[in-house]
Amino acid sequence: MTGWHQDTNESAPRVVVIGAGFGGLSVVRVLRGENVRITLIDRNNHHLFQPLLYQVATAGLSPTDIACPIRNILRRQANTDVLMAEVDGVDWVNRYVFLKKDRIPYDFLVIATGSHYNYFAHPEWESIAPGLKTISDATTIRRNILFSLEKAEMESDPEIRRALMTFVIVGAGPTGVEMAGAIAELAHRTLLLDFRHIDPKSVRILLIEAGERILSSFPVNLSESASKTLCKLGVEVLTHAAVSNLSPGIVEIGERSISCGTVIWAAGITGGSAGRWLQSETDRLGRVVVKHDLSVEGRPGVYVIGDTAHFEQNGKTLPGVAQVAIQQGHYVARHIRGEVTNNPVKDPFHYTDKGNLATVGRSFAIADFGKYRSSGFLTWILWWMIHIWYLIDFQSRILVMVQWAWAYFTFKRGARLITFADCEGEKDL
Amino acid sequence: MTGWHQDTNESAPRVVVIGAGFGGLSVVRVLRGENVRITLIDRNNHHLFQPLLYQVATAGLSPTDIACPIRNILRRQANTDVLMAEVDGVDWVNRYVFLKKDRIPYDFLVIATGSHYNYFAHPEWESIAPGLKTISDATTIRRNILFSLEKAEMESDPEIRRALMTFVIVGAGPTGVEMAGAIAELAHRTLLLDFRHIDPKSVRILLIEAGERILSSFPVNLSESASKTLCKLGVEVLTHAAVSNLSPGIVEIGERSISCGTVIWAAGITGGSAGRWLQSETDRLGRVVVKHDLSVEGRPGVYVIGDTAHFEQNGKTLPGVAQVAIQQGHYVARHIRGEVTNNPVKDPFHYTDKGNLATVGRSFAIADFGKYRSSGFLTWILWWMIHIWYLIDFQSRILVMVQWAWAYFTFKRGARLITFADCEGEKDL
Repeated sequence: MTGWHQDTNESAPRVVVIGAGFGGLSVVRVLRGENVRITLIDRNNHHLFQPLLYQVATAGLSPTDIACPIRNILRRQANTDVLMAEVDGVDWVNRYVFLKKDRIPYDFLVIATGSHYNYFAHPEWESIAPGLKTISDATTIRRNILFSLEKAEMESDPEIRRALMTFVIVGAGPTGVEMAGAIAELAHRTLLLDFRHIDPKSVRILLIEAGERILSSFPVNLSESASKTLCKLGVEVLTHAAVSNLSPGIVEIGERSISCGTVIWAAGITGGSAGRWLQSETDRLGRVVVKHDLSVEGRPGVYVIGDTAHFEQNGKTLPGVAQVAIQQGHYVARHIRGEVTNNPVKDPFHYTDKGNLATVGRSFAIADFGKYRSSGFLTWILWWMIHIWYLIDFQSRILVMVQWAWAYFTFKRGARLITFADCEGEKDL
Repeated sequence: MTGWHQDTNESAPRVVVIGAGFGGLSVVRVLRGENVRITLIDRNNHHLFQPLLYQVATAGLSPTDIACPIRNILRRQANTDVLMAEVDGVDWVNRYVFLKKDRIPYDFLVIATGSHYNYFAHPEWESIAPGLKTISDATTIRRNILFSLEKAEMESDPEIRRALMTFVIVGAGPTGVEMAGAIAELAHRTLLLDFRHIDPKSVRILLIEAGERILSSFPVNLSESASKTLCKLGVEVLTHAAVSNLSPGIVEIGERSISCGTVIWAAGITGGSAGRWLQSETDRLGRVVVKHDLSVEGRPGVYVIGDTAHFEQNGKTLPGVAQVAIQQGHYVARHIRGEVTNNPVKDPFHYTDKGNLATVGRSFAIADFGKYRSSGFLTWILWWMIHIWYLIDFQSRILVMVQWAWAYFTFKRGARLITFADCEGEKDL
């Protein structure tokens, strides 16, 4: 290999982990202290607490509150190198990961690259309706939302003004529902006194779902109570509504056409490049089909976990949630340790569902713990506590708590920044 | 005028304020409750607490901590409209301010657009050595600093690695000194354990000043003690060193050439477009020469304040600091109120210097209150209290305090995000 290399402990097996999300980071942390040389590769320098990314997109939190430098998390883990780099491919015969200018050898490879949004064979929709996966996505959406209202304030044509004040969210899974609730609060409460020529109360928020109900991964009664709460917040929920076309400022649903200033995409996801790298079997969403030990058929030493993997348990595919990624990460780390110490793990991976939570607005959440189900204010307190607890570092916990307490009692949202990248040039002011 | 207009209180005089910095915001706030119709125009949607911007550039604070939405600040001030727009020019004969698609009539106009960096007739240097004026500037610099070290970690050529680990700051005024101190702490303390192939301790930080000493606006003994503190922090201070040429990766100072990964510009400033808009007299830095009441000769109803104005007092031009802008803003507001109520203010503007502070690193500051001068840890505590106090809103104060306390005791810096704008395309990973 060329320039870059690990220079300590030359005889230990090499573990390469791609992706520092919940899954990848679990693998690395469990392998702390083991006799392996780990290289963690991520295209970003930070681990992102994605469950709260919608709060950044709606100006409730600031990007740094939910992102933590990967190097910082692992600074005391001597057996681990962190590389900020983009992976170009994998040579699974000779066991190399290709970067732009380098290649990294591996004995074990864990692919935990996550998912991105699926525009159903319409890649041109992505620029019209950004999804919510990265910090940039979140600040782009925040800018679109706030800037639409700024333009509406200056607009004299009532038709255009009405369009600018219409927000459409496509897809009513947890992210779509959380976004819709948060935008409703931002417009109908936080910004109430801020404008002189428009009334933020008249902002329309449409949540569009192709399926028959919102939050379809939850039981029917919980999804109904979430729907009622959205209604109270002033969100119009449209089910059985599949987007047939998107063009700038216009969402088409069959015959119906909606003029709007902002469209946000929270519909289907796809598993990314892992299937192409490995030339292995994928499901229809592009996720790599893995064996019971999360390894890949005919690709020795390779594991795929989290949103990138297709794993079936009791006839159902595991959902793309943090819990699954974390448990799979732990399992793979144990599996690798077993291989290294000649004490192989025999049991297949088994996912233990600890429950499912979603929040709607600032004081309502739903929870499904199998037998036990709940919704309302206390569930929201639970949602809140769990999210604070899982935030990776202590400082973020305090910062997020301060901001939430502040926002809760004042309805203010501090992170209402419209920032422009230097390269943008034309600002259309 | 076209579309946009104020629709209340049609008979009240119209005051247009351009720029929502310290100066512009002072004017508007003092005129609260007066019988005037105010329009505050800014190209951004937020007021920025610029004295702490260097903390964002060095990952100590996050952008939202020091920025506050203008609408939010003025939401209860009924006589004021906020416009997020770029000003194209001024028709000072017929009294209009031109926006891209609109024009706004005025009876009184206050120009408080601030300053930007002056590249001494080398506009091409701006992309090589960004200055520090906006949130985007700060996140660009933060990205450059952090990304240089990421690249150094992966670089095998010792020459290139050494260059990537060299940071040059041009200009040793308060901003340059604060940046140099903060980068030294970031590299030599915060990141100490984060890398495996480079030693952050060996990061070189050069502070380059064309004049004979750093912080030339302070007394000699204070500037010397600041210089010593920088030395202790590991900053190399070069005085009598004027940049003769800049190209990507290379700073030339006369015969000497320094290879470096990051250059930050903190040298001279210029007053911006106001002189061109008004076709009026400017000084050699492009600042508009104003009369004793801060109005402009032959431009009825027009005032220029803050960094955009050239005002002499006791034979000296007032410096471009927040204090001057705030006091001038208060004066102009009173002056306008006097004109409107037929009770004109006769006294000329007089600046009361409340003192001058600058900080070097995390526990040293210098203060010059005329007779009383001090430096050291207690001065730093004073600097700290004043900056917290002047932060515009309560939430920011708590957030900044939490982060500073955290950083102080742990040496961590939470805001170490490398974010890329979507449009950037080539990331060079």
